[in-house]
Amino acid sequence: MDRRPIGVFDSGLGGLTAVKMLSKVLPCEDIIYFGDTGRVPYGGRSRETIMKYAGEDIAFLRSFDIKAVLAACGTVSTNGLEKVAEDSDVPVWGVVGAAAREAVRMTKNGTIGIIGTKASISSGAYDRAIAALLPGAVTAKAACPLFVPLVEAGKTGRDDPVLRLVAEEYLAPVRDAGVDTLILGCTHYPIIAETIADIMGPEVSLIDPGSASAREIAEYLRENGLVNEEGGSRRYFVSDSPEAFSESARLFLGGELMGEVMKVSLEEMQR
Amino acid sequence: MDRRPIGVFDSGLGGLTAVKMLSKVLPCEDIIYFGDTGRVPYGGRSRETIMKYAGEDIAFLRSFDIKAVLAACGTVSTNGLEKVAEDSDVPVWGVVGAAAREAVRMTKNGTIGIIGTKASISSGAYDRAIAALLPGAVTAKAACPLFVPLVEAGKTGRDDPVLRLVAEEYLAPVRDAGVDTLILGCTHYPIIAETIADIMGPEVSLIDPGSASAREIAEYLRENGLVNEEGGSRRYFVSDSPEAFSESARLFLGGELMGEVMKVSLEEMQR
Repeated sequence: MDRRPIGVFDSGLGGLTAVKMLSKVLPCEDIIYFGDTGRVPYGGRSRETIMKYAGEDIAFLRSFDIKAVLAACGTVSTNGLEKVAEDSDVPVWGVVGAAAREAVRMTKNGTIGIIGTKASISSGAYDRAIAALLPGAVTAKAACPLFVPLVEAGKTGRDDPVLRLVAEEYLAPVRDAGVDTLILGCTHYPIIAETIADIMGPEVSLIDPGSASAREIAEYLRENGLVNEEGGSRRYFVSDSPEAFSESARLFLGGELMGEVMKVSLEEMQR
Repeated sequence: MDRRPIGVFDSGLGGLTAVKMLSKVLPCEDIIYFGDTGRVPYGGRSRETIMKYAGEDIAFLRSFDIKAVLAACGTVSTNGLEKVAEDSDVPVWGVVGAAAREAVRMTKNGTIGIIGTKASISSGAYDRAIAALLPGAVTAKAACPLFVPLVEAGKTGRDDPVLRLVAEEYLAPVRDAGVDTLILGCTHYPIIAETIADIMGPEVSLIDPGSASAREIAEYLRENGLVNEEGGSRRYFVSDSPEAFSESARLFLGGELMGEVMKVSLEEMQR
């Protein structure tokens, strides 16, 4: 047993979808969450800036005595996370590997769709991970830059007309490429999974990278005897207002925060 | 004549719409522009964070020997700019005062609409400025959080179906309140002015705060003998990739940058 907490970070609130899944598969782990709400979103920024922010996010989490880090952010996971995590002495998980493995397990026709932020899609990280597991796999991709703002503006209803219109525009080419599996490569997308499923059709499997990673972390902790059986606490840190974070958290967590939210200044993080 | 440059800043690219107007009314001024592209957008952040970032933006511009600062950002101008600028020994202009004065001049029925980011609208800054100039004026307001992402996603066509749908939803209540004047309280909105005008109807005057402020600065410089007649250079600084900035700048500037773009690190700014 290892009672040290697991650290989870994201550019903002989206990573709470991964916390939700972690809580399900590992109910007695202590979790420390950092959401960089003062600099969210990362999805439209340059690779250099994303790597810089990710390095600061990880360094902040490492200021606690933790046993693993989950980069729940799709944009960070696809933009040089391996490099940023190189000199870490605790394991750092992104969401790409687990999602690619699950997609390759699920696909029957070898044609896999990937949607994500502009930075995630242009990185080509999912393509490389899938090609390494299933040479000859075909991928169809679409950057969906309006999905995050739509979710944050509350346009999450299954039949919301704006969401429908935008989703149809982004997803039609991916659907028409004949994919049978679609990676939801951004933590916000599981929130609108119903609308995405309606457009993709019932025969397409949707992969949630946050959930896939949570399951792989659970497996790793079990295999190495590191599962905590006595914890279950939550601590949240953000770089903008704790109040705004608390108000919006329920949407991503599907329930209460069950822990304190505190503010961290960027100067503290850059130290 | 005062040959010192004018400093202009914005959370990102939007402030270039003000640079465009400044260049028109003051063609021989040197301009130094800072766009905080590493932390854009400000519109959904807390007042405390907006004031902190604005303070750093102004301090960066003040590291040059300038004669005036224009906070071209609607969100900054409505969230404590007066406080942030308190100890500045060069004049700091926001966009609220000039826009309110122009709106009050234009309105015939005393009913004025205001649209902006979430932070701008909830600040109540425009209401207070209008009430001080025209007691008894009625205002009708709407936060339009999707307008900035829509413009940045390139959905700027007059008849873009997504833009139409979103604009109709935001603007219908303001139009139906009987406004005859509408303040476009965010630097991105002039880009979609045609669509806004279509929905508001031809009898509603649209006020662009960036343009209104540029005209007031020109007046101030002329009255005080501070106009530069020999300059006209441009220098741009950003906190994320200069390349991405250069690519998107044309949309806001309506032409070439005509000057170098350089990157500034956040650490440099926080010094």
